[in-house]
Amino acid sequence: MPEVTSIIKDIFIIYAAAKLAGEIFERLRQPAVVGELLVGVLIGPYALGLVGVPSEPLTQLFHNDTATAKEALHIVYEVLAQVGVIVLLFFVGLETRISEIATVGARALAVGVVGVAFPFVLGFGMASVVFNDNLLAAFLGTAMVATSVGITARVLRDMGVIAGREARIMLGAAMIDDILGLIILSIISGIGVGEANPVQIITVMASAIAFTAIATLIGTRIVKRYSLHMDRLRTSNAPFALAVICMFGLAALASYIGLAAIIGAFFAGMMLAEAEDHYELETKVLPVYELMTPFFFVVMGMNVDPMLFTDLNILGLSMAIIILAILGKVLGCGLASWGLGARSMAIIGFGMSPRGEVGLIVAGLGRSLGVIPESLLSAVVMMSIVTTVIAPPVLRLLYSGVKSVEAKRSSLLGRA
Amino acid sequence: MPEVTSIIKDIFIIYAAAKLAGEIFERLRQPAVVGELLVGVLIGPYALGLVGVPSEPLTQLFHNDTATAKEALHIVYEVLAQVGVIVLLFFVGLETRISEIATVGARALAVGVVGVAFPFVLGFGMASVVFNDNLLAAFLGTAMVATSVGITARVLRDMGVIAGREARIMLGAAMIDDILGLIILSIISGIGVGEANPVQIITVMASAIAFTAIATLIGTRIVKRYSLHMDRLRTSNAPFALAVICMFGLAALASYIGLAAIIGAFFAGMMLAEAEDHYELETKVLPVYELMTPFFFVVMGMNVDPMLFTDLNILGLSMAIIILAILGKVLGCGLASWGLGARSMAIIGFGMSPRGEVGLIVAGLGRSLGVIPESLLSAVVMMSIVTTVIAPPVLRLLYSGVKSVEAKRSSLLGRA
Repeated sequence: MPEVTSIIKDIFIIYAAAKLAGEIFERLRQPAVVGELLVGVLIGPYALGLVGVPSEPLTQLFHNDTATAKEALHIVYEVLAQVGVIVLLFFVGLETRISEIATVGARALAVGVVGVAFPFVLGFGMASVVFNDNLLAAFLGTAMVATSVGITARVLRDMGVIAGREARIMLGAAMIDDILGLIILSIISGIGVGEANPVQIITVMASAIAFTAIATLIGTRIVKRYSLHMDRLRTSNAPFALAVICMFGLAALASYIGLAAIIGAFFAGMMLAEAEDHYELETKVLPVYELMTPFFFVVMGMNVDPMLFTDLNILGLSMAIIILAILGKVLGCGLASWGLGARSMAIIGFGMSPRGEVGLIVAGLGRSLGVIPESLLSAVVMMSIVTTVIAPPVLRLLYSGVKSVEAKRSSLLGRA
Repeated sequence: MPEVTSIIKDIFIIYAAAKLAGEIFERLRQPAVVGELLVGVLIGPYALGLVGVPSEPLTQLFHNDTATAKEALHIVYEVLAQVGVIVLLFFVGLETRISEIATVGARALAVGVVGVAFPFVLGFGMASVVFNDNLLAAFLGTAMVATSVGITARVLRDMGVIAGREARIMLGAAMIDDILGLIILSIISGIGVGEANPVQIITVMASAIAFTAIATLIGTRIVKRYSLHMDRLRTSNAPFALAVICMFGLAALASYIGLAAIIGAFFAGMMLAEAEDHYELETKVLPVYELMTPFFFVVMGMNVDPMLFTDLNILGLSMAIIILAILGKVLGCGLASWGLGARSMAIIGFGMSPRGEVGLIVAGLGRSLGVIPESLLSAVVMMSIVTTVIAPPVLRLLYSGVKSVEAKRSSLLGRA
């Protein structure tokens, strides 16, 4: 299998580059995750090309069709990245008790709803003025809706504040936000293909809400009641094996329903948090987290073509979208956090800003339906990157003054 | 990325099926690894087709070319499987001290050399009589040479006897065996393409031997002397990160030289075993081992087409090759273990029998050069499977009477 051998070399390069960049950024007092994103751009196919370029044996396997070989290689990377972000959210879930989310439930709901409404309205408004096309505007608005909570979760975990109030609100809001985004997407893509079937939309809504309710309410109770029976299994380290099965299973189920896979993984983690005291799952999952998560961040960076930033038209459009995207979340989520103090409002606003891959999926769908032009797709790509890269240093800055008892408490809990 | 979503579902099915089959086989007092291999056949594309069949979005990505989509999916599985077997051998390396291998060095050398000579001569002799073609016979002989030590290592680890004398001899012999196999392959494939360049062959030999010497002798000393400096790094859990970098790096380097990637991973593990006392790497790598290794065994099974066994010509040829393959290792390695007692001779003989994927690579190369006919390739596939599936129950049987102090000692060490 010489074609696989070259991919093992890529895996080595990705992992080593991630850790080297992380170490350098830590020494510069910057978040390691930004180092991982940027090193991905650097080693990726658009810059140095150390990875992402199919080897000769791989290309031969696809009858010397380089484009196809590249696509196949890309899928391998995307799978590694997806497993990485699934493990990341699963781990965050393991550190989260449903009871803790429940204490901030109403607030998370408000942050989720208002944080969806503001960016949608801003994106829709801008695009309908510039492009004079309501369907296009609706797609852009939707692409600006959903937070990708992975980056924020990673930064908060690295700082040891993942168990804090703001983190719990953001995790709860990200669930709400994902469900709302899904519902909006199902409506506008229905309109896009010319059939906004109300039955289908209600089915999507109902299954998303049912999945969330079952996983968070019933799932946690089942784990609480029956998890001790895992000791009866013959498989070595059965609780860990069941945890992994649960993680992949709920991730797959969530994406089957149309939710983000990471939301399913987060639910799986939160369910198993109820069995944490007995089985020390966090300690066991931590090495898997450390192995896999760098792939998500480096591969995100690898997908970026820095040359995009040289086209002035795209750059202008991107700047507008970026500003509205950040403004939408900072104003929307910030206002919904009214009463928590200015610092918490800012933390929640910026923490909810990263769009990660969710916006890209929506924009890509709009593109495949012929609604969104290529230039706008590039601008959404840039928005996704910039909102993602900006969040970690801003969050670090906002937290830098916080030396509360809570932060100390959670830093003890947050690090295994 | 709906095309990636469907692969996450496949990952879930593979992992869950592996654990379910393992549990059932453990309850039937059979090795879990056999369950994983067989469940792979069952869920694979040749039987139930629960996995290995590209989803619609994946096929669309390749312009509705199902064959290409299948090939791309296959590469994803192979990468997961390779990472699995790399982690497996790395973990076994972590449990192995170079000093322990050194105590059985001469014996391992003998087992390696004689265990290569016997199967080669038997395979070559049979094929030159049946097919009357010396080059073909040389390819078949070479395909029967190299042990894939992963299966045996897994079985011995599951039984808690990986630190025993026989295990150390087999691990040492597998290194020798891999180097010899590489040298023979470089010679015959040189003849196959019509240019047996002596300079090239000597280069291959020299680099393989140099790599082994540097990794095992110098590498272990470097780790022993400098590993404590890892505490100075800022990266969280730096020793684990460096261990992973080392694992993928030496695996990639080994395959760059032409050795099996797993031999490089084993060396990496053995080097880091010198830092084990201080950093508890075994405990940290164990969850990664438990996550990844099932993919290797299930994917091995998925590649099997059970229908092959219904063609009587292929079946007959396979039976002959299987018998010679087992006989070659049992007689060769067994005789080289003369003086260790009948049980140890049998353990080493059968333990060295699994050919895993190494034989397939050689046969595949012979096929691509047009030297090996399709029927013979199928027979080698079957030989690889049968030698692999037979080893675990036979080893379990051979060990079942052993209740030595050593076994107890190593079972304490072997389980983290």
